[in-house]
Amino acid sequence: MSKPGSPSEPFLLTPGPLTTARATKEAMLRDWGSRDPDFIKLNAQIRERLVAIVGGQGTYVCVPVQGSGTFAVEATLGTLLPRAGAKALVLINGAYGTRMAKMLSIMGRPYAIYETAEDAPPDPAELDRRLAADPSLTHVLFVHCETTAGILNPLEKVADVVAKRGRRLIVDAMSAFGAIPIDSRKSAFDAVIASSNKNLEGVPGMGYAIIKKNALAAAKGNAHSLSLDLHDQWQGFEKNAQWRFTPPTHVIAAFAKALDLFDAEGGVAGRNARYAANCRILVDGMRALGFETLLPDHLQAPIIVTFRMPADPKFKFETFYESLKAQGYVIYPGKLTVADSFRMGCIGQLGATEMKGALDAVKTALKQLGVSACAPARAA
Amino acid sequence: MSKPGSPSEPFLLTPGPLTTARATKEAMLRDWGSRDPDFIKLNAQIRERLVAIVGGQGTYVCVPVQGSGTFAVEATLGTLLPRAGAKALVLINGAYGTRMAKMLSIMGRPYAIYETAEDAPPDPAELDRRLAADPSLTHVLFVHCETTAGILNPLEKVADVVAKRGRRLIVDAMSAFGAIPIDSRKSAFDAVIASSNKNLEGVPGMGYAIIKKNALAAAKGNAHSLSLDLHDQWQGFEKNAQWRFTPPTHVIAAFAKALDLFDAEGGVAGRNARYAANCRILVDGMRALGFETLLPDHLQAPIIVTFRMPADPKFKFETFYESLKAQGYVIYPGKLTVADSFRMGCIGQLGATEMKGALDAVKTALKQLGVSACAPARAA
Repeated sequence: MSKPGSPSEPFLLTPGPLTTARATKEAMLRDWGSRDPDFIKLNAQIRERLVAIVGGQGTYVCVPVQGSGTFAVEATLGTLLPRAGAKALVLINGAYGTRMAKMLSIMGRPYAIYETAEDAPPDPAELDRRLAADPSLTHVLFVHCETTAGILNPLEKVADVVAKRGRRLIVDAMSAFGAIPIDSRKSAFDAVIASSNKNLEGVPGMGYAIIKKNALAAAKGNAHSLSLDLHDQWQGFEKNAQWRFTPPTHVIAAFAKALDLFDAEGGVAGRNARYAANCRILVDGMRALGFETLLPDHLQAPIIVTFRMPADPKFKFETFYESLKAQGYVIYPGKLTVADSFRMGCIGQLGATEMKGALDAVKTALKQLGVSACAPARAA
Repeated sequence: MSKPGSPSEPFLLTPGPLTTARATKEAMLRDWGSRDPDFIKLNAQIRERLVAIVGGQGTYVCVPVQGSGTFAVEATLGTLLPRAGAKALVLINGAYGTRMAKMLSIMGRPYAIYETAEDAPPDPAELDRRLAADPSLTHVLFVHCETTAGILNPLEKVADVVAKRGRRLIVDAMSAFGAIPIDSRKSAFDAVIASSNKNLEGVPGMGYAIIKKNALAAAKGNAHSLSLDLHDQWQGFEKNAQWRFTPPTHVIAAFAKALDLFDAEGGVAGRNARYAANCRILVDGMRALGFETLLPDHLQAPIIVTFRMPADPKFKFETFYESLKAQGYVIYPGKLTVADSFRMGCIGQLGATEMKGALDAVKTALKQLGVSACAPARAA
């Protein structure tokens, strides 16, 4: 068995899947019957715990769905947007906003987009103007933390505008949920969507949406898909507390354990504090080496950080990546349109020791490459 | 940690999720980066190994998809049936055939059904007549082993008729794949669909379709869903060998190990032999106690066996189920329209010892209930 942090099992400084706790993985060492009362109880508890994270007890319901986060996003959009009579405004500043628009296009649901650069959050005043200008817009689709650049978009301000204009808000909170506070009593949303394998530090295989009960109750028959019909999935849980179709039992058992660890760390506040400290160590350390972040600090979510590529021609990204991996750290190559860059995550079962270890690995890699200055090229 | 076969972790005599090998579960004790070259290699190997199981090397391609088997079925239908110009004939003799028709209905794809009773396979001659009578039928959808009653439907005969009539065949082989021979060189099908957690004895979280390359190549733009678009998923693998959206990394690592164990057991022939022996022990043992099987032996797949409920009013199914569970064996309640019944599976990491143990547990449960004769009520 390899050891986390070794070249054969590197720490994952990525947007996910992430490094998880040993105890979370060990929860997968048994088989569950999916209709077994003990498993059913585990599921019910998970669903309640997720609703509580956004303070939605009583008014919201959690509907999990098999698959990745994207499955949960598509399921939520397909379920909550009626087949006719709705039009969505998609706020885009990265790949995940773009992906929602693509889903709507495939589903044949009308939409408009409001796009800003990958390093620019949407402007609430501009959103307000657009909603005022087009009364046919019924829903606003919003990405809380856009993993593309790592930007934190302004949930509360956007929610206020959407509520003031009497429209409905759906939040893709994939990279934010569990580490950035989201309060259903402060921000009026119909749904917030996330997955098992991000800040809650479970393993991948399950997504979920936390949906306002009255919005979900009105969504019968909307869905474009049987598998991705969250109204039907919810009704299944209501009927017998069971999944309609085979659930990823081991993934779910691991998620229950991951939630225990999340609670033990102090919930959202505790996790936010660790990730913010990780992010601080990473950003400060990289800046000390001459790297520049794409985002100013006030837009940076403590999830994943985008660094501009150094201008030094001796900096070859592939070699840099391989050197880090050989030292036990995997990072994520960026795919931004706004800047030549790479990304390093600061989430998962990592703390100060691992972040400092990653910085040491960066220094070693730079030495191997013969790079002494990491400043990016200046834009013309 | 509990022990398999104990009341807290019973053996699963169900249609799945199943009891899996310890080594399969232990493969989940590490985290993988989903874009890591080692993980990419593991995926490529799994895809090739699955194609080889149906002898489809060169002409077929395996496209896995996140989620349960139902997700894979829906993805395959949505991808291979064009949005216009196609009409499917769904062969139904249980819940899974019915479910395919429901999917088509939600997707808005035209279809007809040919339904037989849950204990009656479709008649190839009748299928032939129906295809001859309706030239607009382009595809036939067929369930190889209908888990509902445990019936083995006649794949080769159906495939012959469909081929002779120049139509296309899609096979839901969920409960058959890996334990019942399926040969793409003998039976002409466009796709065969299965999942990680049935006879191949992985853990749940992934489905897959093995699709004829030229059929898949012609399927661009058909899908009703982004997440369930197998053409797009395939193109993603072709481009960089990676999943489009976060894969269930631990489930996949477990599946790779499960395939090793499958090969070590002698592939389909080996697994079929063990399951057939399990089924024989179960059926003979239950008949010796007076139980009757719903199906005659020649229609019985060695996967899951339906037993008619004993007529004795002292036989309370819930008590029977609980007694078996307390002895370390979980069975599956039937949901048949054709007969009052219950079901016991004979697949997963179980052998003669466990099947005999289950029979002993049945005897104990009957003693506790005070039931001496297990014959069912005679139909009026």
